[in-house]
Amino acid sequence: MEGKIVKATIITIGDELLIGQVIDTNSAWIAKKLNEAGIWLHRRVSIGDVKEQITETLKEESKHTDIIIITGGLGPTADDITKPVLCEYFGGKLVIDNKVLKHIQSIFEKRKLPFTERNAKQAELPDVCTVLHNPVGTAPGMLFEKNNKLYFSLPGVPMEMQVIMEDHVLPILKKKTTDSVILHRTLVTSGIGESFLADLIQDWEETLPDYIKLAYLPSFGLIRLRLTGKHRDEQILEKELSDNFRTLKELVKDYLIIEEDLTLPEYISKIMKDRNITLGTVESCTGGNIARSITVLPGASAFYMGSVIAYDNKVKTEILGVKSTTLQSHGAVSEATVQEMVSGGLRSLKTDYIIATTGIMGPDGGSAEKPVGTVWIGIGNHRKMISKKYNFPYNREKNILMVTNTALNMLRKMILEEES
Amino acid sequence: MEGKIVKATIITIGDELLIGQVIDTNSAWIAKKLNEAGIWLHRRVSIGDVKEQITETLKEESKHTDIIIITGGLGPTADDITKPVLCEYFGGKLVIDNKVLKHIQSIFEKRKLPFTERNAKQAELPDVCTVLHNPVGTAPGMLFEKNNKLYFSLPGVPMEMQVIMEDHVLPILKKKTTDSVILHRTLVTSGIGESFLADLIQDWEETLPDYIKLAYLPSFGLIRLRLTGKHRDEQILEKELSDNFRTLKELVKDYLIIEEDLTLPEYISKIMKDRNITLGTVESCTGGNIARSITVLPGASAFYMGSVIAYDNKVKTEILGVKSTTLQSHGAVSEATVQEMVSGGLRSLKTDYIIATTGIMGPDGGSAEKPVGTVWIGIGNHRKMISKKYNFPYNREKNILMVTNTALNMLRKMILEEES
Repeated sequence: MEGKIVKATIITIGDELLIGQVIDTNSAWIAKKLNEAGIWLHRRVSIGDVKEQITETLKEESKHTDIIIITGGLGPTADDITKPVLCEYFGGKLVIDNKVLKHIQSIFEKRKLPFTERNAKQAELPDVCTVLHNPVGTAPGMLFEKNNKLYFSLPGVPMEMQVIMEDHVLPILKKKTTDSVILHRTLVTSGIGESFLADLIQDWEETLPDYIKLAYLPSFGLIRLRLTGKHRDEQILEKELSDNFRTLKELVKDYLIIEEDLTLPEYISKIMKDRNITLGTVESCTGGNIARSITVLPGASAFYMGSVIAYDNKVKTEILGVKSTTLQSHGAVSEATVQEMVSGGLRSLKTDYIIATTGIMGPDGGSAEKPVGTVWIGIGNHRKMISKKYNFPYNREKNILMVTNTALNMLRKMILEEES
Repeated sequence: MEGKIVKATIITIGDELLIGQVIDTNSAWIAKKLNEAGIWLHRRVSIGDVKEQITETLKEESKHTDIIIITGGLGPTADDITKPVLCEYFGGKLVIDNKVLKHIQSIFEKRKLPFTERNAKQAELPDVCTVLHNPVGTAPGMLFEKNNKLYFSLPGVPMEMQVIMEDHVLPILKKKTTDSVILHRTLVTSGIGESFLADLIQDWEETLPDYIKLAYLPSFGLIRLRLTGKHRDEQILEKELSDNFRTLKELVKDYLIIEEDLTLPEYISKIMKDRNITLGTVESCTGGNIARSITVLPGASAFYMGSVIAYDNKVKTEILGVKSTTLQSHGAVSEATVQEMVSGGLRSLKTDYIIATTGIMGPDGGSAEKPVGTVWIGIGNHRKMISKKYNFPYNREKNILMVTNTALNMLRKMILEEES
């Protein structure tokens, strides 16, 4: 395979993917890892737990690709048929692997669970595969080779799939693809639509060499722009990519909010930790989503102190000290209320910065004066307060995500402006 | 197409899907809707913004399927090439559609944005398609017909895709598939692993008629079991499905927590609204995730009052009244602390029930005595308090989701037990 572009296909197996009960996050994770390893993902295919489909898809995809990564269908239940089908496809037979059997038994002992015949069956493996050890679960990965192509079969449980990818699959693949490098440069913009952004950078985009590609990745009011370059010569690529990234930053400078491959919560975490300042949130309409977007990141406790989620007005008055008269005369969704929420948050959570949100996310609760999507966002520290009204035209879930990004971006701006 | 099984394929187009920057949620949404409409999803395929790939995939999938639904690649930017490729594939040419042009212009007027040539281009449509109006965006859907097969092309923005599916695609498809009915029965179990559950119901599962299928859908400590039946005669199907569902419920009764197709937060919402009781949360380690799982549901304000996210110990003592001596002698992750958090929550949020969580989610912060994954969960009302310690062996994100489900399930149990 050396010396040419290495192409891969991901095949995810499971009826649950075809009835829409499960969102496939494995494919995106694998795609990202392959991309980083310089392997071009040709296609992703999802099929059901059906023997004929699995066989047919393997045959078809083998025509176009060098590497096939299969996930799912290795569990102990009756709707999982991947293993016997692969065994037959590659012309082997199932035999007990004693190392795997011992490993499964030790997992059951550790979890103090009885060991059943069904579990023992997971140690039956095709005698034509290389077994890829699964340290965190009972179903091992398998590697098959046929006509100089590699076929990896991995369990569908994300954590187990990820461990086997990192421990076995990626090291094997990296050995096969030493001839070219893939590098990325990423930035994030806010406050500009996709088509305006495209107009702004079109002339420059047309001058890009064919080994550098640009992708637009919009996400709830933000657009991530990503340059991906692939070249045999790392130095040439590095220079060309850096030059073009510099030009791109200059072109979008009025909308540029992050110059690296970080999400907005990750960026907020970084600048707050760097500056040794603390944050609290006072959420009404976002109902904990801002807090969650921050606390899901490792190390959040270094700067994030906590939140008062004041969903009910009583919580606004009693814990945050918002005045009843303010709520009565201006309403819960008003500038006066959001400002008192910020002050109350600074007082009770004792942080350097507070984000506050109050709004109507829908589908009910709107009025002619304050329709669904109306929201007030307030950001403040002990010197300054900023409050802004927005109207988002989306459904409940998307409105909440838009308010979250908008509020975090207001915080980002305020922190940076305080310094200048 | 009448009188036989109607099969569909979903093709999602976009380089962003192949580099792993975006998780494909559209496919799951479409799959669910097709399934409800009695259409069997054959495969899902994701490909890049590459002309040859689009053409080749259309040709290949047409061999196996009656309906092809394409999403993505219709935006105004240069990396979107789906429209011209489809136009060529179906032998048409691009012409301005005046109705669409007016609609796009009106959107730009409403948003007070300048109208550019690039935007006008979105009104250029193949003269061989039926235009499907997009009331919420600028890119309309398109319907092509060839060899008695239907090809729908929809924008990749989830909300726009969903509106066009509901308004146009599903009504058209329903007319084509009047000959069979699809029905589901769903329940949720907790506290039993997939393989044990499979042992428990294997004998019964083998007696299912071939038009009824069982799926296992595990999710963070819970397993959803779903029976799907497809039959021409609704009455026969209804009876057979109900009989089997009754048997299944009896078999899993020790682990059964929900007998309908609701998530745990949806079920909690339902029983709290029915009983007219209120909830507050006091979250440390879950950092707002429990609050968010509830407030993302419409109508949450009817029973959910709010939360104190006590990430920092100062918030625990000052807002919730947890004693400093308790924190010092037992630590923040302890039974004494979680119980004082429950009491503090009942006092300050004034709700009927409180959920409290405190733990170490990782990757850092663990010790020999309290390793990463240690968590105390407390549930209480004014009469009773339950607190329990758990150890979860996962990464930060999964630990948080496991604690969320475990806490909501403890709440469910307590509410139902209080009545009996």
